[in-house]
Amino acid sequence: MTIRTVVWGENVHEQKNKVVAGIYPNGMHNCIADALNKDANISATTAVLQDPEHGLTKERLDQTDVLLWWGHAAHGDVSDEVVERVAEAVWSGMGLIVLHSGHFAKIFKRLMGTPCNLTWREAGERERLWLTSRNHPIAAGLPDSFELENEEMYGEPFGIPEPLETVFISWFQGGEVFRSGVTYKRGAGNVFYFRPGHETYPTYHDANVQKVLSNAVKWAYNPAARIANPTDAPNVPVDVAPEKIEERGPRLHHDGEEGFR
Amino acid sequence: MTIRTVVWGENVHEQKNKVVAGIYPNGMHNCIADALNKDANISATTAVLQDPEHGLTKERLDQTDVLLWWGHAAHGDVSDEVVERVAEAVWSGMGLIVLHSGHFAKIFKRLMGTPCNLTWREAGERERLWLTSRNHPIAAGLPDSFELENEEMYGEPFGIPEPLETVFISWFQGGEVFRSGVTYKRGAGNVFYFRPGHETYPTYHDANVQKVLSNAVKWAYNPAARIANPTDAPNVPVDVAPEKIEERGPRLHHDGEEGFR
Amino acid sequence: MTIRTVVWGENVHEQKNKVVAGIYPNGMHNCIADALNKDANISATTAVLQDPEHGLTKERLDQTDVLLWWGHAAHGDVSDEVVERVAEAVWSGMGLIVLHSGHFAKIFKRLMGTPCNLTWREAGERERLWLTSRNHPIAAGLPDSFELENEEMYGEPFGIPEPLETVFISWFQGGEVFRSGVTYKRGAGNVFYFRPGHETYPTYHDANVQKVLSNAVKWAYNPAARIANPTDAPNVPVDVAPEKIEERGPRLHHDGEEGFR
Amino acid sequence: MTIRTVVWGENVHEQKNKVVAGIYPNGMHNCIADALNKDANISATTAVLQDPEHGLTKERLDQTDVLLWWGHAAHGDVSDEVVERVAEAVWSGMGLIVLHSGHFAKIFKRLMGTPCNLTWREAGERERLWLTSRNHPIAAGLPDSFELENEEMYGEPFGIPEPLETVFISWFQGGEVFRSGVTYKRGAGNVFYFRPGHETYPTYHDANVQKVLSNAVKWAYNPAARIANPTDAPNVPVDVAPEKIEERGPRLHHDGEEGFR
Repeated sequence: MTIRTVVWGENVHEQKNKVVAGIYPNGMHNCIADALNKDANISATTAVLQDPEHGLTKERLDQTDVLLWWGHAAHGDVSDEVVERVAEAVWSGMGLIVLHSGHFAKIFKRLMGTPCNLTWREAGERERLWLTSRNHPIAAGLPDSFELENEEMYGEPFGIPEPLETVFISWFQGGEVFRSGVTYKRGAGNVFYFRPGHETYPTYHDANVQKVLSNAVKWAYNPAARIANPTDAPNVPVDVAPEKIEERGPRLHHDGEEGFR
Repeated sequence: MTIRTVVWGENVHEQKNKVVAGIYPNGMHNCIADALNKDANISATTAVLQDPEHGLTKERLDQTDVLLWWGHAAHGDVSDEVVERVAEAVWSGMGLIVLHSGHFAKIFKRLMGTPCNLTWREAGERERLWLTSRNHPIAAGLPDSFELENEEMYGEPFGIPEPLETVFISWFQGGEVFRSGVTYKRGAGNVFYFRPGHETYPTYHDANVQKVLSNAVKWAYNPAARIANPTDAPNVPVDVAPEKIEERGPRLHHDGEEGFR
Repeated sequence: MTIRTVVWGENVHEQKNKVVAGIYPNGMHNCIADALNKDANISATTAVLQDPEHGLTKERLDQTDVLLWWGHAAHGDVSDEVVERVAEAVWSGMGLIVLHSGHFAKIFKRLMGTPCNLTWREAGERERLWLTSRNHPIAAGLPDSFELENEEMYGEPFGIPEPLETVFISWFQGGEVFRSGVTYKRGAGNVFYFRPGHETYPTYHDANVQKVLSNAVKWAYNPAARIANPTDAPNVPVDVAPEKIEERGPRLHHDGEEGFR
Repeated sequence: MTIRTVVWGENVHEQKNKVVAGIYPNGMHNCIADALNKDANISATTAVLQDPEHGLTKERLDQTDVLLWWGHAAHGDVSDEVVERVAEAVWSGMGLIVLHSGHFAKIFKRLMGTPCNLTWREAGERERLWLTSRNHPIAAGLPDSFELENEEMYGEPFGIPEPLETVFISWFQGGEVFRSGVTYKRGAGNVFYFRPGHETYPTYHDANVQKVLSNAVKWAYNPAARIANPTDAPNVPVDVAPEKIEERGPRLHHDGEEGFR
């Protein structure tokens, strides 16, 4: 069975900016999806901001194993309801891969609980990504380092929680460094942030970048059945406690009552 | 200099419930603050939900080194604006200690990015907290385990991100376990969640619990000057890059322009 | 392709103790290997302490994807040379699953860098394992908790480094708790410690335990080619530096010289 | 009370190499100790390889709060017995700060359980250290980045376990990056590795480096009384179990017997 993957694209600069449209005539999301579909284990489709419900209905998310997210100019146009829906899907087991300027996407900030800020410079400088974890599934088949001749710079300090694992660190020609590949778990969902991908450069045409994304989809995929109610906080009444106990002392709640939220 | 500490209390059940009022005639927040003030290094005051801006104005947070948070029945009554203000204070360096039912407080869920859910039972059963990290600053002076004869049960799975460190794990008479003391860092702020503290039991009168709270205040305290703008994402123009570079290729932004958020 | 798995057993108590021999007439290692072989993705064989080189020659480790380790009475009889060989295999990408009393195995202490000590009691008491990470690959298909009616107790504090992830926590009838399933990464190798498995009880006949072990083998398996020289520290001469630089200042070493170790 | 600090130096190149002797006429260890002693909270002395028991007797370690370790050419000359003694001191609560080429010191490899290898180049190139965790106690008072005009390069992949926290990442002129400041906990002891410090450059005279070291000593200091027997694995007999239980089933051990190790 293939991994059902959705590449979500903001699809704004591709429509407005000639440079971006030239590099990605079918949009960045389609470029990425095409690259993923070269892997027989992945079946990728796309969704864009402009679709109804941004293309991310409950039904579609239920059928999505891994979601990739690229956004930049229009983070604020993403509906809070959809963001919460995506967060619940992640908690229930959907994988999420956040790309480049998606560090400021509502969904990434929602799942991190931190500002996710950084320093930046748009100068087409050279970026070199170094593996910090050789043979990590996300780095499988990659050399210890690879270069992107033209990229936007993102610099530390990067306002994220301490990652579960740091997989890549970038060197920039202008003198900065950045944790460019970091993993997290949120509920049953695997989350990976991958830095490169500024829209005015052909980053998603790069073979190493495409390799990282295919690897990341496979890494993020959780084959277990989705958790039905990932936010439930069930009461366990005394008579079904794992060990026999007797109720003691005063209480606030009645049996089977829902707790406060 | 003492650690300027604010104990925030929801102050609802103390007013409405005779049992709670009997155990905490001055409110849980004052009981906790009194306990903290026994330590010469701590100077604790209180704030409650019913205060203007819940007692947590920008000015007060600026003067607060560590904030403790106890809430249960009225999480939904806490204003989103204050929650965001507290989050910014944490990112800038304020310590935060979240107590018991505060696992569902808006501020905790905001900083964790997860549902923070659990199973629960109100039966006055015995809880025994075990240290998993001997001589951790939060556990300083404590035995390897201590008991609370009557407590509410919280059970795993607890819907939190993998902690930075797990300091306590609880055993419950009814058969469950729970990660009762867990640490996080969010921005420059240290965060500690501590499980015990159901309002119908005298938990905050317990000497070991009081010791944990005093220790936790000292652990959470970050003496460095608060970070002024913890969410800033400054542009670093080419001419001030750490290494001399020349701009190359197309760009989206003008010099010194603010990025998209 | 199946995951080439070796179950290493100390094979001492099975030969000396009637109770153990009664429960595991073919040895614990064969019971575990038989259980793993029920999974079509796993191909498990065994090795024992008494084999030449403990059955763990360089050639065999090179052909082993995942190694399981059960030892108890004879940790000291395992040769240091074999321990180092196993450590190198892990660093190069072999998965390692350490079982029960293997917490004191040389290889586990070698990889952890800590005492790996704990408290213990042999009373046939009830153990209940709780998931802390629902739908973790190692917990796939398991309920939120499961019981072993008779087990040895291991109690916290457990002298391990903070795990990458905590997957299971045990509740014991006698009042203790224990982090019973913890993951680590050492080099390119995934490491999992799983607590249950005292030799005088039929633990490895338990369906849930067998499920955990099968899951863990699949989780620990790293399909990437093994890293050839996992301990190398190569010099990168100036003329092959990724960026053009010129040598400056005094130096200790000649070009291409090996560094100090 | 001041933090009793010992700076351990290998003291080999200072004696043999004119360049090193010129920069550190009293030895690197004394340069570092002098810098630390400028901080009123720290009281630093030194010990060297050539001292009896390398200056690290049991008595001295018992009186040491934090140990700094610089070694390079003579790692192999450090006695295994002293290494194990230092490891036990760390587990019992002593802080340890490992410097530069100490990544290959026996004590660091012992505590990490990994090869601790890296790539390297001795070209006097520029290193720029970036904070990844602003206002971390170890980074208190430091700018977001600082430079060392001449340093040896260390490059990723660095063969260490995933750190508890990454505090600094270095950029190198020649194109590499490195996790230059990483924290760990081993038992009750805090461990910090700090990369800069090649002996042919005046790194330990640098004000920012000195600031990091002073900060690190304060961070690593655990004021709790040392754990007496950090490797003990005590039996908890049935009659003193926290909860009343009765012994069931067969057993291997007699009451109060020591377990196997």
